[in-house]
Amino acid sequence: MSTYLGEDFLLHSPWAVRLYRQYAEREPIFDFHCHLSPKEIWEDIRFETITQVWLSGDHYKWRLMRACGVPEEFITGDAAPLEKFKKWAATVEKSLGNPLYDWTHLELKNYFGVTQRLSSETAEEIWETCNKKLREPDFSARGLILKSGVKALCTTDDPADSLSYHRSLRQDNSFPVAVLPAFRPEVALHPELDAFCPWIKKLEKASGMPVGSLAQLEAALENRAEFFRENGCLIADQSLLSPDFAKGTRQEAEAAFQQALSGKKLEPEEQNAYQTQLMLSLGKLYHKMGFAMQLHFGVLRNLNSRMFPQTGPDAGFDSTGDGISASSVAALFDKLDSTGQLPPTVIYSLNACDDDKLASVLGCFQEGRFPQKMQLGAPWWFSDHKDGMRKQMKALANTGLLSGFLGMLTDSRSFLSYARHEYFRRVLCDLLGGWLEQGDIPEDEALVGSMVKSICYQNAASYFGLTPKA
Amino acid sequence: MSTYLGEDFLLHSPWAVRLYRQYAEREPIFDFHCHLSPKEIWEDIRFETITQVWLSGDHYKWRLMRACGVPEEFITGDAAPLEKFKKWAATVEKSLGNPLYDWTHLELKNYFGVTQRLSSETAEEIWETCNKKLREPDFSARGLILKSGVKALCTTDDPADSLSYHRSLRQDNSFPVAVLPAFRPEVALHPELDAFCPWIKKLEKASGMPVGSLAQLEAALENRAEFFRENGCLIADQSLLSPDFAKGTRQEAEAAFQQALSGKKLEPEEQNAYQTQLMLSLGKLYHKMGFAMQLHFGVLRNLNSRMFPQTGPDAGFDSTGDGISASSVAALFDKLDSTGQLPPTVIYSLNACDDDKLASVLGCFQEGRFPQKMQLGAPWWFSDHKDGMRKQMKALANTGLLSGFLGMLTDSRSFLSYARHEYFRRVLCDLLGGWLEQGDIPEDEALVGSMVKSICYQNAASYFGLTPKA
Amino acid sequence: MSTYLGEDFLLHSPWAVRLYRQYAEREPIFDFHCHLSPKEIWEDIRFETITQVWLSGDHYKWRLMRACGVPEEFITGDAAPLEKFKKWAATVEKSLGNPLYDWTHLELKNYFGVTQRLSSETAEEIWETCNKKLREPDFSARGLILKSGVKALCTTDDPADSLSYHRSLRQDNSFPVAVLPAFRPEVALHPELDAFCPWIKKLEKASGMPVGSLAQLEAALENRAEFFRENGCLIADQSLLSPDFAKGTRQEAEAAFQQALSGKKLEPEEQNAYQTQLMLSLGKLYHKMGFAMQLHFGVLRNLNSRMFPQTGPDAGFDSTGDGISASSVAALFDKLDSTGQLPPTVIYSLNACDDDKLASVLGCFQEGRFPQKMQLGAPWWFSDHKDGMRKQMKALANTGLLSGFLGMLTDSRSFLSYARHEYFRRVLCDLLGGWLEQGDIPEDEALVGSMVKSICYQNAASYFGLTPKA
Repeated sequence: MSTYLGEDFLLHSPWAVRLYRQYAEREPIFDFHCHLSPKEIWEDIRFETITQVWLSGDHYKWRLMRACGVPEEFITGDAAPLEKFKKWAATVEKSLGNPLYDWTHLELKNYFGVTQRLSSETAEEIWETCNKKLREPDFSARGLILKSGVKALCTTDDPADSLSYHRSLRQDNSFPVAVLPAFRPEVALHPELDAFCPWIKKLEKASGMPVGSLAQLEAALENRAEFFRENGCLIADQSLLSPDFAKGTRQEAEAAFQQALSGKKLEPEEQNAYQTQLMLSLGKLYHKMGFAMQLHFGVLRNLNSRMFPQTGPDAGFDSTGDGISASSVAALFDKLDSTGQLPPTVIYSLNACDDDKLASVLGCFQEGRFPQKMQLGAPWWFSDHKDGMRKQMKALANTGLLSGFLGMLTDSRSFLSYARHEYFRRVLCDLLGGWLEQGDIPEDEALVGSMVKSICYQNAASYFGLTPKA
Repeated sequence: MSTYLGEDFLLHSPWAVRLYRQYAEREPIFDFHCHLSPKEIWEDIRFETITQVWLSGDHYKWRLMRACGVPEEFITGDAAPLEKFKKWAATVEKSLGNPLYDWTHLELKNYFGVTQRLSSETAEEIWETCNKKLREPDFSARGLILKSGVKALCTTDDPADSLSYHRSLRQDNSFPVAVLPAFRPEVALHPELDAFCPWIKKLEKASGMPVGSLAQLEAALENRAEFFRENGCLIADQSLLSPDFAKGTRQEAEAAFQQALSGKKLEPEEQNAYQTQLMLSLGKLYHKMGFAMQLHFGVLRNLNSRMFPQTGPDAGFDSTGDGISASSVAALFDKLDSTGQLPPTVIYSLNACDDDKLASVLGCFQEGRFPQKMQLGAPWWFSDHKDGMRKQMKALANTGLLSGFLGMLTDSRSFLSYARHEYFRRVLCDLLGGWLEQGDIPEDEALVGSMVKSICYQNAASYFGLTPKA
Repeated sequence: MSTYLGEDFLLHSPWAVRLYRQYAEREPIFDFHCHLSPKEIWEDIRFETITQVWLSGDHYKWRLMRACGVPEEFITGDAAPLEKFKKWAATVEKSLGNPLYDWTHLELKNYFGVTQRLSSETAEEIWETCNKKLREPDFSARGLILKSGVKALCTTDDPADSLSYHRSLRQDNSFPVAVLPAFRPEVALHPELDAFCPWIKKLEKASGMPVGSLAQLEAALENRAEFFRENGCLIADQSLLSPDFAKGTRQEAEAAFQQALSGKKLEPEEQNAYQTQLMLSLGKLYHKMGFAMQLHFGVLRNLNSRMFPQTGPDAGFDSTGDGISASSVAALFDKLDSTGQLPPTVIYSLNACDDDKLASVLGCFQEGRFPQKMQLGAPWWFSDHKDGMRKQMKALANTGLLSGFLGMLTDSRSFLSYARHEYFRRVLCDLLGGWLEQGDIPEDEALVGSMVKSICYQNAASYFGLTPKA
């Protein structure tokens, strides 16, 4: 019987248990998209308190606390670490059914050996236990990564970044985990941000090239992409709301860029033209560099203008936007594909209503380079829960090949979030185990087991062309 | 074993049964949104026949009869009550799987003690039984409300209403149920209706104020809102299709209002500007009054122009519209929130595809006033069925706090519809019981039980600030 | 216990098994929408190899092969039939969870008695077995139709078609299956296609009428519809992306048609006006002819411009588009209904997110002609899988009458695709059997059994007015 946080947690059938034990549990982790700080890994930082690990930057938790009526003082404010932790504990108590409830308890169990449930009542005891553990030698940043079974991870990096920590880490043979940069010219695609013009300056400096025209921007980005490639980069990344890639000429994009450089706000059509043309250039660049391209669609950011001055971005005021049009995505892919320059691409839409539609668009651009060139990525952010995972895997199975799925990524800023891989693997094994149990797929352990194994690690390693460090 | 309409109906696990028996079944009802007539409650009307109770105004049933090929004569026409009832019985027989099948049989069982299934064959016998029961003393309007365990209910009222029945009911100590008005300036937001200009006249009369400008309209509405508040109102309400609240200036809205007053049809942009500005004013007004704001989105009304002249509105010719944009909802909330004037808000989208998206937008505007200030409301109208309920509760759990959910409301015109609360509670307990049974949540009866209990009654009572009458 | 491809495959409860055995399994098939070639049926063609049957035109399979990294040579190219079959076998091996995995094995079992699973290892043996079987007398086109239990089928035919094969088949008493034409003026609605102007010429020739204006186009189409009716046609059909039927006047449509005739590309608004007006005319025509109208929405075609010149249309480069607006569909229905000219209509949206919304729009146009005049069609193409079927049937049950559902159609070009009816019937019985098992519907075998039976065959036969041939 599956019990909460027990050995068979989330594994609701004998087949699910067997698949997890035999084929999933011990697979290494390739966390190909996360937001860990390479500096913190290089410096192998340590944590004073569980509050620092859990609550210093995790806006998922902040949102839940606000929903619970916790005053901002205990969230992003100046309250003492223990007080913040107590507020979090009281929030957890109220959040049955939310993935944070499960992640929290998995992390407590896996890293701290705590099997009590977190609540107002247990908060202080757990606080002590965790903080004590955090003083043990293997609870540094690197220690946590190692004990999680991570073989490689990709951070998320600005093209203007010097990659100095990645380079140091690469040469450090004492740390067997590959820490690779990922190329994310996020600001480049978002001229609406205040950070845009200053960022252009940073790019000029990093590339040593002037950036006064779209062509110069592209040249500077190529310069940096080459530098990233030399430093082990395999993947590029971008987040967007829902541009219409069927619209916007080169001329319009150039004009928009000039506007943006001069500090003017762009009209929606201008911004769209700019995003379309730049994404086309970036797609070609990634193809040339051998990068896989990750596209995150459907994100609305910084919706709360009262809180923004106080908290800045990434503080829990983002949401799922409307879906992206199938025609738009198809137009981007088709333009790149028509000249043979469509890189391997992973799409993530924050709006899970898009899953089936996008899976079917992706199916129009598969080709013989390698299996499943075009991928529907794992559910993400607000969709990253059991129901979302099942939905996305079914969409993939129904309209394509679940067997080629790249599996999970943490997308996290925390060194404890690897528990999400375990969570995902349990859900995966439960889905396939359930199918086996019901006779909906053949009772062929070798076939299903190897599928599970591949989804846990090997598919992603092959797809992105990972060379593990050790 | 759960059997149809048996004690354990819809409760598919031992835990589901236990939760329902111990924590749900006996909770009182606060039906915070319905369309009952305060006049009928005050007059404590009685019903001649089951046809009168069931078929005189229930357009859900009318739709199903039309789908079954029943001629209009037996629906909204002049056929004899027994003939209409027989047609309904024959329709029920064909409607396995539809919530009306279940509601019908729950109502027969709970109010009339009928456990036979309704069909062409049983129609006459059931007709006799029900009509006989309806002559018993406690089968009046008030009797039905009382035997349903209702502690309080909110009707849906026009700002121009005198609230005379609510006032009489308030002073009538013989009836222990609080019957509160809810402020719904429905016509105010819909200048496209023929009723618009006549309604403005009614508002002028009710408020004793001239309404020749937007500012005057707002002042008159504030006047009436104050009157409503004095008479126990806690909640405001509105239904809309899917306006874009990111668009439309005050000047445009004023111009549109002048156009509408002069009887001209508005262009879509004009109507949008008007709706945006008026909703902003109403949001601020509700904040000032201490009303919670309910917003019903995604409704398309009166689609059948052949039938409209014959049946008028609310006759079964409405449908789910396209979803509302995340940016639009966020713009409305942000504008209100930026000045600290966002009232506690419950969103209902008739298009259930919006659930996850809206839940994530709501998460950006939670704050410390009280837990779960911003709420995703229960599934409604065409989504009010087992699958819809499970979907909405999962959306809430996955992206926020299910524990703070306000639970069910009938949204009904019928005195028998309280069976929908039982239906909902069974589905709720089945969902949580299933999670318990599978070990997906901790086996902590006190925790889960108190969550069930709160969702049944207490959450809504606290959220809306209900003071029960007795 | 249900095992893969066993007798009880997909039937997960005793009730599911009972319903399937007693009420579904032996019902005849009325395949009211498919893409079989009447010529091939008339000529009673035979197949050399299983590659010819399976891989010569089935773009579902082609897509999956491309997703698996199979080079185009083995898909639409010149590779030898056995080589193509081996590549397909290797693809199947990777496609657990995809409906093609199940259809493939059902077809192998039902037609060829092969119970081995198809894989690289078994490919050659299965190749031999199938090809040998294909040489048996009853493995001709007609033989396959007959052994599938088909009573009638509707092909998909161009209005300019001579229907000569249909006429020959009608008079051939040796073949007891009714092979009826269906009226699909697909090109007429798609002036964006290169084929448009040449097709107008064909229509002129077939009708013997000039087609230089919209009115003349309509007259010519009416001429052909009459001809189709004389030859047994019961159904018309159309596929569209997502036009806005609330927009576009007759004058705009006429102007657009003139533009298209002169070979000019239409602007989106022009195309929309043309599609709106022509669909209105076609709806009225179908009403006059007594045809039911099938509308397929949400289709994006030929997205891959690199592959198009090589493969042409219907080669696996189509996808699900964005959904269609509720207002648009309502506008089309309302205009037709307002003059009493709305034919019985079946809607299919490729975007399954539309299911609930469309089901509710359909509910506004039901009327007393016959039960469930307005129908939500079976899931289709990319949605034609177990999850899609369950979703659509639940949408129908929740918002209308599942009991009146028209059931399955193959939509296929292959003589082996009748296995999809079996697949559907198993899913249907599993859904209803599950409800029975759980006590969610009354344990009334006669009631549920007759519902199953009707959905398998009789509902469609009654709805479309089928007179079987024998």
